[in-house]
Amino acid sequence: MSGGGKLSVVGLGPGDGALMAPAVRAALDAAEEVIGYIPYVEMAGPFRADQRLHASDNRVEMDRARLAFTLAAEGRRVVVVSSGDPGIFAMATAVIEALHQGDQPGWAAVDLEILPGITAAQAAAARVGAPLGHDFCVMSLSDNLKPWEIVERRLELAASADLVLAFYNPISKARPWQLGRAFEILRRYLPATTPVVLGRDIGRPGERVIVTTLGEVHPEQVDMRTVVIIGSSQTRSFPRADGRSWVYTPRWYGSERG
Amino acid sequence: MSGGGKLSVVGLGPGDGALMAPAVRAALDAAEEVIGYIPYVEMAGPFRADQRLHASDNRVEMDRARLAFTLAAEGRRVVVVSSGDPGIFAMATAVIEALHQGDQPGWAAVDLEILPGITAAQAAAARVGAPLGHDFCVMSLSDNLKPWEIVERRLELAASADLVLAFYNPISKARPWQLGRAFEILRRYLPATTPVVLGRDIGRPGERVIVTTLGEVHPEQVDMRTVVIIGSSQTRSFPRADGRSWVYTPRWYGSERG
Repeated sequence: MSGGGKLSVVGLGPGDGALMAPAVRAALDAAEEVIGYIPYVEMAGPFRADQRLHASDNRVEMDRARLAFTLAAEGRRVVVVSSGDPGIFAMATAVIEALHQGDQPGWAAVDLEILPGITAAQAAAARVGAPLGHDFCVMSLSDNLKPWEIVERRLELAASADLVLAFYNPISKARPWQLGRAFEILRRYLPATTPVVLGRDIGRPGERVIVTTLGEVHPEQVDMRTVVIIGSSQTRSFPRADGRSWVYTPRWYGSERG
Repeated sequence: MSGGGKLSVVGLGPGDGALMAPAVRAALDAAEEVIGYIPYVEMAGPFRADQRLHASDNRVEMDRARLAFTLAAEGRRVVVVSSGDPGIFAMATAVIEALHQGDQPGWAAVDLEILPGITAAQAAAARVGAPLGHDFCVMSLSDNLKPWEIVERRLELAASADLVLAFYNPISKARPWQLGRAFEILRRYLPATTPVVLGRDIGRPGERVIVTTLGEVHPEQVDMRTVVIIGSSQTRSFPRADGRSWVYTPRWYGSERG
């Protein structure tokens, strides 16, 4: 579009370049300005000397979004990087929010595109089989931007609905007890044998996958780089030839076997 | 592993090759046997003359899964194709289920991998902004393999939880009234102004994206190739410079603005 540059908000996927969309790779190659949280900018590289990097600390999403529009409105080719999918607890929301709330001269003329990526729950699920093979709910356990009562209410309703759950932002130094409380709530609805998958840094060095149960899982096994998947009443687990476990949620529910 | 071949269950993504993971492209290139629903095998091609194609009609997922293990156990390199993500209402579940239920000689020795892909809800979300930017629920509206009462109960609980919803298998000739009923249920919980996104064949020829509202959406606008995204009470929509609309669900909830 005339007058405006281009702004691409891209998802790097879980971290393994073999799972990053070619469209994202092309956007990174064409970028003049690269904006993002420090480790994600590092993950997106290497970059050429002519590409300007704007790597910032966590929790400044709106600042990054506004910088992206400002540079794109000057006619620059700008890429905002997220890990996973930018549309799932990542930068796309902040970018659209910035456009909605703070439209400055030239921002509306910016050619804005969102390029999706494989999100952490998908990458972890693929490693263990198909725990997300039936209806599921993806939620952030963080109460930084929503009241904890809302998190608890959603946990209770999602468990009543017998949905598989995937938790993002499950725990942090500032939020040490919330995950344990979430497990407590779920134990009221689901048997102790319910499969639980902990996937950390999938597709990155040091990848770790743990298959455990709702009865045995401990918050100490989880950190902020872990995605937590909790099965429904239908989810099952069985041993693999190599001693690990497969986990899947069948396509059918209850007695309606296909 | 000795004695066994390799079985890769891969996600083609929404249909645009620029959104397909390089790992999936490599698996397709290396495949000796390619198994899948007819349109997805076509989408995955073109193939070489030395690659054997096993394209089958819909609703024979378990037959496809068993054929895949049988060929892989003979030492063949087998790829099972799904559109989107094989782990989300697609072939990975059937493959793991087949292994669990019908383990035949040699099946356990097959080197089985699941390669994820961008699923339809992600592709549609990216086209309109970030409707999945907060807690959301992905569910199939099909009552082929689960009782319709379970679908209704999940709709009521998910709406009570104020989750964004993404519907797969929203409607078909054999299931003509269920989507209208789902809209009726949601209208009891959500205002008529709630944004609704209909994404059909995203990334394929004839792609169509409609942004409408829960008050105005009609089942006639939807077919089996459409993913339906229904906002929460927090989801908002605003016009783009080109006359279309952006849709996003803010990162914060209620008054907890970031």
